[in-house]
Amino acid sequence: MSIIVQKFGGTSLADAEKIRRAAEHVIKAVKNNYQVVVVASARGKQTDQLIADAMELNPNPPKREMDQLLSTGEQQSVSLFAMALDAAGYDAISFTGSQIRMITDSVHTKAQIKSIEAERIRKQLDKGKVVLVAGFQGIDENENITTLGRGGSDTTAVAIAAALGAEQCEIYTDVDGIHTTDPRIFKNAAKMEQISYDEMLEMASLGAGVMHTRAVEFGKKYNVKIHVRNSSQQTEGTMITAEESQMEGVVVSGATIQKDMAKIGLVGVDNVPGNAAKVFAHLANAKVIVNDIVQTELSAKKANLSFTIHISDLAAAKEAVEKIKKEVNCEKVFIREDIAEISVIGVGMRTHYGVADKMFGALAKARVNIDSITTSEIRISCIVDEDQGEKALKAVSAAFDLDKPAEQRKTS
Amino acid sequence: MSIIVQKFGGTSLADAEKIRRAAEHVIKAVKNNYQVVVVASARGKQTDQLIADAMELNPNPPKREMDQLLSTGEQQSVSLFAMALDAAGYDAISFTGSQIRMITDSVHTKAQIKSIEAERIRKQLDKGKVVLVAGFQGIDENENITTLGRGGSDTTAVAIAAALGAEQCEIYTDVDGIHTTDPRIFKNAAKMEQISYDEMLEMASLGAGVMHTRAVEFGKKYNVKIHVRNSSQQTEGTMITAEESQMEGVVVSGATIQKDMAKIGLVGVDNVPGNAAKVFAHLANAKVIVNDIVQTELSAKKANLSFTIHISDLAAAKEAVEKIKKEVNCEKVFIREDIAEISVIGVGMRTHYGVADKMFGALAKARVNIDSITTSEIRISCIVDEDQGEKALKAVSAAFDLDKPAEQRKTS
Repeated sequence: MSIIVQKFGGTSLADAEKIRRAAEHVIKAVKNNYQVVVVASARGKQTDQLIADAMELNPNPPKREMDQLLSTGEQQSVSLFAMALDAAGYDAISFTGSQIRMITDSVHTKAQIKSIEAERIRKQLDKGKVVLVAGFQGIDENENITTLGRGGSDTTAVAIAAALGAEQCEIYTDVDGIHTTDPRIFKNAAKMEQISYDEMLEMASLGAGVMHTRAVEFGKKYNVKIHVRNSSQQTEGTMITAEESQMEGVVVSGATIQKDMAKIGLVGVDNVPGNAAKVFAHLANAKVIVNDIVQTELSAKKANLSFTIHISDLAAAKEAVEKIKKEVNCEKVFIREDIAEISVIGVGMRTHYGVADKMFGALAKARVNIDSITTSEIRISCIVDEDQGEKALKAVSAAFDLDKPAEQRKTS
Repeated sequence: MSIIVQKFGGTSLADAEKIRRAAEHVIKAVKNNYQVVVVASARGKQTDQLIADAMELNPNPPKREMDQLLSTGEQQSVSLFAMALDAAGYDAISFTGSQIRMITDSVHTKAQIKSIEAERIRKQLDKGKVVLVAGFQGIDENENITTLGRGGSDTTAVAIAAALGAEQCEIYTDVDGIHTTDPRIFKNAAKMEQISYDEMLEMASLGAGVMHTRAVEFGKKYNVKIHVRNSSQQTEGTMITAEESQMEGVVVSGATIQKDMAKIGLVGVDNVPGNAAKVFAHLANAKVIVNDIVQTELSAKKANLSFTIHISDLAAAKEAVEKIKKEVNCEKVFIREDIAEISVIGVGMRTHYGVADKMFGALAKARVNIDSITTSEIRISCIVDEDQGEKALKAVSAAFDLDKPAEQRKTS
């Protein structure tokens, strides 16, 4: 029998009615002769409530105790889910992270999975039971409860699917799947049937926000098919898979916009070996996550160095830059907060020409000024004025036919 | 360093302010150079809420899943309690039943403790930490979470005190301690400084209701001093200990009233060997818990057999009696629901005469009619009309000076 892993987020489990509706997806899979493992997040706003309870007692709670506290939310979800399945006449058993020996490192509140004892799950599946596993949590080697941080339940689900060699890992959410671009901005954005791990990683880190990056990385590493779909519907969603040859036929799979960014430029830095390293070492010390970096030569002796960061890191970044300014002999620092980054993504770029041309052409026609450009193997990004960001995304999305299904885009 | 175990009930942990107040008791003990282990129940109405959530999904939830669900309440309490101690500058670490290997049998929702791994607790105490243990819960040998049933956290606390050889186990509650009788009825009822396990067991099973019977039995078995005291005050409460010689000086330690009872009488049963056994075998099959049994001879061939039960078992008991009536040749069955049982309890009865006389005299003077009488080694109980119950308790309490401290009662 094939195994399927189904993951339900907190909004899909917010009340009894929603839990029953989630259970129907499980029952359907059982009827289709699958062995089913369910991974559940904490119900609705439970986690927020527990965090508020903790903060009332201690504004800076010990992380070990925070994990001990927060892990109860998922434990409640899986036991209640098991009761719902029992009420519908299906045998079910729930497990905590501890009970299936989901071993992680000891980095409380953002632990990494090291191993899973798949046998305990398999034994129960073979008894004909639906197995429910509390998402987001594990234990370290000293039996301390750990949690995996944001998006942790997605990671739990993909990791279990990998450990069991599941046919696929379904991520039930409140959207239909992954769209070519943000439908709130480009309203005819098409739903993708399929996307590669690498494309998804570029989309996720650039703000598409449906799946957490770590879960996708895990899926890529262990080649787990991840199916993102709507929990309140029976329609197919989007399959995240390894790159397949036909994917290359599509030049651009999706486009993203990222706001909440800032760009810092260091003008006239001495162009000597080691200066760039000094800058980024200081930023790393200040725990600033740097996105794209651009360096251009001004003269034989001077260079401009600029980089983008999340707006929330701006204060720390400014402080770090102040410290380093004299050391690298920087003439001037400029900071822009009013920017947005527009990106097009597609594995087809590896084998196709003309994507950059088409993108810049579309932006020019829409009269959007490009501040700077960066590229990766499967992505082209432009920094534009923030107030031109949505217009830019629309122009690019239209140029690459992102309102059409992938088959119709292949020849573009 | 001596170890002290402190147990806090749900009402003592209902909100942040109450948790902080409970933490003050811990801090006081730490300052007095104790190593402290805290056992906590679920906060306020948490358990009731979880039960309601479960019932909404499944009116007859699987017991294993119920335990998985309910155990989260205590886990939340201990982690929050640890955060409160941390905020006050005290190092603390919380454990679930699983983490300290509180091994129980597999009888979900009313498991019995088999063993505790005290080493994990001791190791943390020796690091200078306050150790918090989730009450009410354990795991069976297959890592399934179990719960200990009503009063389970008291039992956890006493069991841990026994395993660690603690100096005493403090049970923090919302009353000052254990009173000689119910202060709602006999308003000057004195608070006891001390009571023996056996007296407490008689008091508890007869409805005094502060400590759960199982916890007291555990205390007796492992000779753990149990100190019942008020969490919102610093005054001494009542110490439950092994019988000490001076206790015998007090003839009557306390008096209780039990309502919600019924009495069933079988009149003119054939007085042949085995008939009583038949009756009680049928009642046991019907899961009826029988309290006192009285059999009296009517003639050489006939006897009256009567017994008391809790009112909630009456329907089941009636059914069982209907089945057995012909078999034992019973002439008539009478049932009384309008009764109360008044008891006086004291280990001093073992060595003193005249207690029964004094009790019956007090009841006669108050014009209370006695329906029937039963006794144990340290208890005398009278069944009276329910509407005379409170008057009877007052009369008996006054006769035995239960408004006075024990020292002043010794000569009575």
